[in-house]
Amino acid sequence: MKPTLDTVAAEAGVSRATVSRVINGSPRVSPEVKTAVQAAIAALGYVPNRAARSLAMRRTDSIALVMREPDATVLNDPYLGNIIIATSQTLIDTGVQLVLVNAQNTAEHAQLADYVRSGHVDGVLLASMHDDDPLPRLLLEAGIPTVVGGRPSRPLPGLSYVDCDNEGGAQLAAERLLSAGRRRVATIAGPQDMTAGIDRLAGYRNALTGAGRKADRVAHGDFTRESGQQAMAELLTRYPDVDAVFAANDMMAAGAIRVLRDAGRKVPTDVSVVGFDDIELARHTEPPLTTIHQPIVDQARTMTELLLTQIGGDPVADPVVLPTVLVERESA
Amino acid sequence: MKPTLDTVAAEAGVSRATVSRVINGSPRVSPEVKTAVQAAIAALGYVPNRAARSLAMRRTDSIALVMREPDATVLNDPYLGNIIIATSQTLIDTGVQLVLVNAQNTAEHAQLADYVRSGHVDGVLLASMHDDDPLPRLLLEAGIPTVVGGRPSRPLPGLSYVDCDNEGGAQLAAERLLSAGRRRVATIAGPQDMTAGIDRLAGYRNALTGAGRKADRVAHGDFTRESGQQAMAELLTRYPDVDAVFAANDMMAAGAIRVLRDAGRKVPTDVSVVGFDDIELARHTEPPLTTIHQPIVDQARTMTELLLTQIGGDPVADPVVLPTVLVERESA
Repeated sequence: MKPTLDTVAAEAGVSRATVSRVINGSPRVSPEVKTAVQAAIAALGYVPNRAARSLAMRRTDSIALVMREPDATVLNDPYLGNIIIATSQTLIDTGVQLVLVNAQNTAEHAQLADYVRSGHVDGVLLASMHDDDPLPRLLLEAGIPTVVGGRPSRPLPGLSYVDCDNEGGAQLAAERLLSAGRRRVATIAGPQDMTAGIDRLAGYRNALTGAGRKADRVAHGDFTRESGQQAMAELLTRYPDVDAVFAANDMMAAGAIRVLRDAGRKVPTDVSVVGFDDIELARHTEPPLTTIHQPIVDQARTMTELLLTQIGGDPVADPVVLPTVLVERESA
Repeated sequence: MKPTLDTVAAEAGVSRATVSRVINGSPRVSPEVKTAVQAAIAALGYVPNRAARSLAMRRTDSIALVMREPDATVLNDPYLGNIIIATSQTLIDTGVQLVLVNAQNTAEHAQLADYVRSGHVDGVLLASMHDDDPLPRLLLEAGIPTVVGGRPSRPLPGLSYVDCDNEGGAQLAAERLLSAGRRRVATIAGPQDMTAGIDRLAGYRNALTGAGRKADRVAHGDFTRESGQQAMAELLTRYPDVDAVFAANDMMAAGAIRVLRDAGRKVPTDVSVVGFDDIELARHTEPPLTTIHQPIVDQARTMTELLLTQIGGDPVADPVVLPTVLVERESA
């Protein structure tokens, strides 16, 4: 009798899902368990043949990456391009193909769910998710393994996601400004219908209230450079004595720096600025931007690994929140 | 007898390939021919059913977009991400899926050729191509419709490509500097093993010799910001009286601007700078960069359309070279 996933699991004294995790190269396995499973595989002569498994389980060995941004913005936003490229790089040598799918409206969502249900792909990565997004529920109801980039605003049972620590990173940014002696720290917050916007504002508030200060110097933007300029102009009017700004993304920070210079305020001498994301642009602003690094490559890699292990039979994984770090440049 | 592509062609008095072009929505058909073919389709009751055609012709209704850049650079280079996203957007409503494939070394090239030969995709888009690249030949020999982004350094019969007018755009940039009264126009050239680098240097030379000047103030970079800094420093040493620089891409232009400021030269008062590409960064340098717009979205769309019409039975199309335009900002 040929060894199976079950006989390997019994031999190693672990679950079937754990064996699958080891075979799929998941990082979510301890070295000890990995060694035990590999020993069992060797002892039984089990051959995890992807092609054979694919046939038996009606696998397509393809996953879909679904994007839903409007045209104009994505071409200016490095996030999506980087998620796509990093996902593709993660799949090198896995034998799994990446299918890119655009689904920008509700009709396309239904079409996509049909496409996925008819077995063209084994699972779906959603690059990002908005508040009223019907797609994750459609996919989950169809039993399709699905992993989302970013925390959904309402938790959806059965849906894994991989986020970066937006709240912790924003707190780090604001604390950096406070610890440098800045007294009147404002923030340019992101859209409050996106969890990244909500969480980054919460981080700013944590830092300021934690230091016994009021967290009320807040203006709002929509993550574009133009909105950062408007919000900075508004802050200068409402709080002329502002001496530091945490902008919830680098694009808005770049707009803020421009407005500060035009207003005759030196960055960082008069007003320190910290951004969030660490996109390529952050290295090119004048002065170069101190910011919070968002680990996009790690995020894409982790999303892909979670999806592959789930396709491989793993239960739905707990959400993963990746740590963020401060990148010191010259603006703060 | 059911009408076929051939009977429609005979009725309309055009070739089979032209009918296919009309059905696939190619822009390369005159309005008159389009009307004639549509009239023939209506008269004969021909139904161009993609699914049926797909079955009959063993179509997969998938195309592959192949990328071959090393990891680190692509995440900083918006070109590839934009090509991918624009290609995906072009395929909306075509019913054709986009499969992203990484092939970074020769072993993977052979694997990819096998993958394509075994009928997983109908055709291949190569995002870019290097001098010694064996992949296009492998694909052509296997009879796979293939379209490349950018002019190959050696013409390969049967290979279509879509380029932007690198030479014309570079000439435009240098002429812009000359017509503003600049006398000592230097260039930071790109790598001379890439046609974009070669053609942009040729454009600079055309402009200067056309104006009766020597085209000898040349330093070389590799399209990175760091190399632009080094090349600008070299130009300042060799030609301290330089009053204008055409950098062969925006990244190198950004590096040049930084070095000029550090050297106490005002941009554009003392030294004008023009870049090439019009990436997002060009709007954020200080001062914002005057540059040549590279039509990446049009390029991806045209590549995709050429590939679809070729898959639909069209003969291999002539190369397409898209026009470039000057975008005036503040650096020149």
